[in-house]
Amino acid sequence: MKTLIIVAHPKLIESGTQKFLKTSLTKMEDVTWHVLDVTQPHFDVAAEQALLQKHDRIIFQFPLYWYSAPAVLKQWEDEVLNRNFVYGTQRALAKKELGIVVSTGDPQRGFVAGGDEQFTLSELLRPYQALANKAGMTYLPPFSIFQFAYLTETAKQRLVIDYQQYITNAEFQNFHGRELWFEDQLKQKLADSPDSQKLTQILTAIQDNREDLEELGWTLSMIKDDEDE
Amino acid sequence: MKTLIIVAHPKLIESGTQKFLKTSLTKMEDVTWHVLDVTQPHFDVAAEQALLQKHDRIIFQFPLYWYSAPAVLKQWEDEVLNRNFVYGTQRALAKKELGIVVSTGDPQRGFVAGGDEQFTLSELLRPYQALANKAGMTYLPPFSIFQFAYLTETAKQRLVIDYQQYITNAEFQNFHGRELWFEDQLKQKLADSPDSQKLTQILTAIQDNREDLEELGWTLSMIKDDEDE
Repeated sequence: MKTLIIVAHPKLIESGTQKFLKTSLTKMEDVTWHVLDVTQPHFDVAAEQALLQKHDRIIFQFPLYWYSAPAVLKQWEDEVLNRNFVYGTQRALAKKELGIVVSTGDPQRGFVAGGDEQFTLSELLRPYQALANKAGMTYLPPFSIFQFAYLTETAKQRLVIDYQQYITNAEFQNFHGRELWFEDQLKQKLADSPDSQKLTQILTAIQDNREDLEELGWTLSMIKDDEDE
Repeated sequence: MKTLIIVAHPKLIESGTQKFLKTSLTKMEDVTWHVLDVTQPHFDVAAEQALLQKHDRIIFQFPLYWYSAPAVLKQWEDEVLNRNFVYGTQRALAKKELGIVVSTGDPQRGFVAGGDEQFTLSELLRPYQALANKAGMTYLPPFSIFQFAYLTETAKQRLVIDYQQYITNAEFQNFHGRELWFEDQLKQKLADSPDSQKLTQILTAIQDNREDLEELGWTLSMIKDDEDE
């Protein structure tokens, strides 16, 4: 699976969040980091469309400005996503995935009915969901980062892993898919340093656990079947 | 009441809808028609903010591009609506109204759960509603125009009146407010042509009807009170 990350940020160099996210993807394969140039007056439509076609998972990545992406992403949409390409004869994005990576300096608790912002991020991002729908794309659950600057080190480490999976794991939405992804990551690391006892131990632990987990999964599904009857 | 219409349309000259809307406002007082220049790299923030402060009802008027306004309106939002001005110390927009005039070439029937577009316009325009909420503004029900090119002459005449009221009538959301607005419009027209028998007749008819309507209103409210008990 190839992923295209379309980064829309008018002050990219100043953004600690974007720098962190970019660093998280070091050594990740099949990922294209594509920054939208805010200084250009227009986009090269053919080049942008070709880039989209080469990838399977498309990510819009941006800080939330007035409950939406910065203007440059909208300009890109307005220019690049023309009717024929998206839902006319071509339908060039059909069967691809659309993901949103959105960061905001406002706290998560505000994004709820009755909260400071009144609406959830899922509601505010509807225009992207509607675009995915029109294009025949699969809309992924948005990946949101609230108040990055206040995250603890542990929370940041967790963010790295979650983000890596959102970008590179075709099956990040189920437990088994996440497990396989971890195993795959460990194997790659082991290939780099085959003598690491620690990595070998973790890999063995995951593989041992899997058998236990599969058994547990069976038991749970039997209990559930009983309850459903 | 002073109304500022912020028109965001990258191909304004080609737009029959926008031309029609502008013509509808000929002779309307206290209305500023403000077109966002898509060729400029940046907005004059101080001038735009001063303009906003001079008006009571702010209208974002645009064609729906990818379920949102064209990029130029977002650019205007990102540059002009800075934190202090909107919800910091200034709160310069508080108590003002925010209205949306949105046109689309897609049919109304698609904007519903299960329809082609999957979401209603009310849902898709949430980012503007959230902005109004944050700014302490009153959010007006969006004014939507579907498939303008296919409207009948009668529908267009109705559109003129509805649009005029959305822009200039402080009380367009209740029957009494609409009635007073019509009376006011007729009186202005009569001042221009005092000998018009037709206008005098219509005005008299409205005034006569009002007494009947007020009586009817009483009766209806009594019936409702009975039902509620």
